[in-house]
Parts: sequence; structure tokens; C-alpha cells
Amino acid sequence: MKKKYIIGIDLGGTNLKIALFGPGFKIIDRENLNTANFRQKETLITRIVDSVNNIIENNRLIKNNILGVGLGLPGPIDLNRGVVHFFPNIPGWSEVNLKKILEKNLKLEVFMDNDANLMALAEYKLGAAKGSKNAVCLTLGTGVGAGIIIGGRIYRGSSFAAGEIGHMPINERGPKCNCGGFACLESYIGNKRILRQAQRIFKRDELSLEELSCMAKGNNKKAIQIWSGVGERLGLALVSVVNLLNPDCIVIGGGVANAGRILLDKVEETILSRAMPVQAGAVKLRQAKLGNDAGVIGAALLVKEQSHSNLRSLKWPTYE
Amino acid sequence: MKKKYIIGIDLGGTNLKIALFGPGFKIIDRENLNTANFRQKETLITRIVDSVNNIIENNRLIKNNILGVGLGLPGPIDLNRGVVHFFPNIPGWSEVNLKKILEKNLKLEVFMDNDANLMALAEYKLGAAKGSKNAVCLTLGTGVGAGIIIGGRIYRGSSFAAGEIGHMPINERGPKCNCGGFACLESYIGNKRILRQAQRIFKRDELSLEELSCMAKGNNKKAIQIWSGVGERLGLALVSVVNLLNPDCIVIGGGVANAGRILLDKVEETILSRAMPVQAGAVKLRQAKLGNDAGVIGAALLVKEQSHSNLRSLKWPTYE
Repeated sequence: MKKKYIIGIDLGGTNLKIALFGPGFKIIDRENLNTANFRQKETLITRIVDSVNNIIENNRLIKNNILGVGLGLPGPIDLNRGVVHFFPNIPGWSEVNLKKILEKNLKLEVFMDNDANLMALAEYKLGAAKGSKNAVCLTLGTGVGAGIIIGGRIYRGSSFAAGEIGHMPINERGPKCNCGGFACLESYIGNKRILRQAQRIFKRDELSLEELSCMAKGNNKKAIQIWSGVGERLGLALVSVVNLLNPDCIVIGGGVANAGRILLDKVEETILSRAMPVQAGAVKLRQAKLGNDAGVIGAALLVKEQSHSNLRSLKWPTYE
Repeated sequence: MKKKYIIGIDLGGTNLKIALFGPGFKIIDRENLNTANFRQKETLITRIVDSVNNIIENNRLIKNNILGVGLGLPGPIDLNRGVVHFFPNIPGWSEVNLKKILEKNLKLEVFMDNDANLMALAEYKLGAAKGSKNAVCLTLGTGVGAGIIIGGRIYRGSSFAAGEIGHMPINERGPKCNCGGFACLESYIGNKRILRQAQRIFKRDELSLEELSCMAKGNNKKAIQIWSGVGERLGLALVSVVNLLNPDCIVIGGGVANAGRILLDKVEETILSRAMPVQAGAVKLRQAKLGNDAGVIGAALLVKEQSHSNLRSLKWPTYE
């Protein structure tokens, strides 16, 4: 029997998602866990190993049916060595050779990348960026990140740290950012900043982003103004991206993107009014299609692509 | 006899440079003309054709010895069709199929690209970015442009318009820019802006950038302040580039770069203080090495690379 099943894992600060993919990248089984239940590094790793073994067994498969395990991670990784540097939102991880540990315990090949890159790969291969050549796929949440596709492949940069669109400064002076810089895009439109601004304006401590979106859709002027400000600032960073990279597609995903048209229209308006005409005309702005499954789908796609490469390495042949 | 000679041409708003390259990319003959002498499109094209024919004849070569003609151009081009859209600083050009015209007249293969890309190719292959993988090479002059090297190749973007670093906005609000946008980097640090600022501060209408550099090197406080401001703003745009693209090398060239350390030190200081540590640590900042020859050298390198490609097309196989 051919190895035609793949396991995709998406480890986030909140959720640990494990999915079994059959032919055609169809999810045939899945498990969602709360990351917070596994506060120790060791318990989390054990739980991943157990979940993978269980999902294989429960579906009456054997290890030989599995092409590999793909893993999306919420932090910087050394892809050459398969080492997790750290996770900003999961304590206790420092220079962990996760690839080696998992491969030893699972007896399966393991492929890793950061979550923004895998989301981009998923949207590029099967979602909103399908058919494009050079795409930038954003996730707007607590953090504002992006995966960059160039010439049909994930572009990772020289130390696997490309795509930090949330840390492009949009002003010479501005608020301090967690990254150590200031006036970064994320310091204006990270979801906590938006919430804080909204809670102050509406004088309601329990206001959520979902509510804020609903209010804007219900024509609440103040709510519209908040989203419009978010769209303008996001649009401004994207003017830089568009003029610098001349992409043919920009995909916007993540919780904040659920504000929908009210946000995207302002982003588009800003790009059209401030970016250079040729570049602005070449780019399509789209809402992400794959939603919460983008992470596991991207992880599965990574396995497919890298296990088929001649090099069988974690790197793409030509980019790093 | 093998085709081991290449002709590299660098057409600028001010100078038209034609160089004959022998083995090892050594310039064995050259001609520099004033572009302004050929105000008509037709006279300029005729002069290019004559110069190429002359340089071949004068060096006792025949067309069969020439691998091809490379041409760097100061404006946007459709590389698929070999068509010049227009030149911002040379009037009279609109949708000219320059490749076809030159190939017909020269009976030689002609390869074209914009000047910023060819400067980047030259610095990457033979200059300051040698040995890097992902490099951004800037030219600072009237315009502020860049060529991007990714995975060892020119990255051109989806409509051959990537690299417009001068049109990355560095503020939400700011001065109007020629491109139609505002607060663009170029609208702060294009050489005319720097000059105007310096002339106002020193109340001297004839002050040149060379003098301003000398004054700063001679410890003139006001001059140092001006260059320091330029460095800070350039550095700010590069913080965005560094966090987004995680390059391993940034090369700074063009007339404004002659200010030297006083400028580069401030750029470096800004990157180190505002970019993310991993990305800031991965990038080397270097002054361009090839000076005024970068354009013709890049044009010659383009011929070498593209005439050796299997596709023999104007495009690279994987990027556009």
C-alpha cells in the first residue's frame, strides 16, 4: 500500500490541532486540544506523539501508510537543524530539537515550519491565492504576521525570519512595540490594541472584537471609524509591500480579518490611492478562504512537497 | 572562434555608456556619451546601434564573436515583450519595442532590464553583495530605487516593477511624492530634497551634495545633522525591508551614498535599534563597490546568464 496519508499539526498558543489527511488533502479525522492543558514542554510533546499514534490506530492505518508529519509552530525555528528557538506565547521552550525528538518517538519523518508560512502555503495551493505567482498572506491576530510566496514557493529569508509585516514601522515616531522597535504596524493594529481602543471609546470593558465587527456592520459610526483606522494603517504597510515586492495577490486572514468588507475596502482604498499605479493594478486583495484549517492544511502540504523533493531536506532547493 | 565578448549598455537620463567586455568581464573598450545630445527617440536608437557597430569594428571583432548585447534602462519595461513603457527622465518614449528594433538593426541578441536590477546583479555577482543569498541593493540619487536578489537571482515582481523602495511610505502623513503617493522615502531623501534642505539651512543656492559631504566630514554640525536625518529615514525604510525580507546583505550605492560612513553609520544604528534582533543580526550593510560601472557590468552579466539559460527567454525560469 502506498504512503498516501499525511498528518498535519498546527500548534498555537491556544489550540493544538491534529488532522489526518487522505488523498486530495481531505481531512478524514481530527483532534483539537487546548494547548494550555499541557503547560510542561515534555507533556506537550508526549501529547503530540500520543495523538499521532492514536489517530493512525483509530483509522486502522499503520505507520507505513503515512508519508510524514507536518508541523506548524508559533515561533522562530532553525529549519536547517529542526530546532525551536522559543515560542513567544508558550513558556518553557528554548532551543529544542523538536524534529529529532518527534522523529525518534514517532518513527515517522517530521517536517516543520512556522505557522504564518504554512498558512500562506495553504492559501497559495488550495485557497485564496491559488493561481498567483507572488503572494503575501497575512494573519491578523494578537500578532500580525505574514507568509511570503515567491515564484510559487515559501520565501523564508536568510535566517528563516522573513514575513514580519507586523514589525514594519509605519511612522518615524510612534508607540513602543513588543519586538523592541516602535511605531510597528502591530503596535497599532494587533487585536489587543484594537480592543483597548474600542473599550475606551465605548467605555465597556467586556467588549469583544466580534461585537465591534457587528456594531460596524450595524452602521455604528464609532465602530466604523475604528475599523476604518485599522484598514488605513494596514493599507499603509501594504503600500510598502506592494511597491517593494510587486505581488499579484495579498490574502488577509486571522481573527481581525473577520471584520470583513469594512476593513478590506479601506485597505484597498489606501493601496489604490497611495501605491504606484502599475503595482497597485497588478495586485488582488482577497480574504483568506481556509479559515482555521489553514494551519493543518499547510502542514500537510509541506510534507507532500518536501518529501517529494530530491533533496529530502527541510529547505527548498533554491531558497532559504 | 567562440562568442566570448559581450556588450553592456547603461542608458541613463544623463549618460549613455557602452562597454565591450572580454573574458572574465573585463572592460576592454568603452564609450561614454551625453544622453541629452540625442533628444529624439530615433537619434538615440541610431546612436546606440552605431556605437555597438563601431566598438565591435574598432576592436577587430565580428558579430559572431559577440554573445549578445545587454541593456540597462531607466524606466519600467515589459520584459516579456521587450517593450519600454516610458522613461521618467527621457521624453518621447512610449511603448517602444526596443528589443525588436535593436535586434533587427544589430543582428545580435539583445537582453534588457531596468538599471536598478542590473546594478543589483552586478554587485551580487562581482561587488559588495558577493557571497550573499538574499540581497537588496539600493541606488540613492534623484530617485531612490533598489534591485532585489532572492536565492541568487533578480526578483522582478509580478509586473517587473519590484524594488521601488523609494516609494515605501515612512509616515502616515507627509510630503507629496512624484509617484502620486505621499510620505514616500524618496520624498524625504531624494537628492533634490536633500539639496533644497541644505541650501535653505546654509542660505547658499549653489551648494552641491559633494560639498555637503565634505562639510560633514570636516565636522560641520549642521551638515552632519542633515546627513544624520537622511540616514535615519533611510534606516527606517530598511527596518521594514529587513523585518519583511530577512536579507543577508544590503548594498547602498548611487551619488548620495558618497556621503560615506556618516550616512551608513546612522542607517546601521537605526536598523540595530528598531529592527527585530534576529533579522538585524543576519544582515550586513555595505557600500556599493562597482561605482559608475555597475550598470554596464550588470548588463553584461545579464547577457551571460540569460543566453546560457535553457529557456533563452527574457524571464528567469522560476521568477517573473
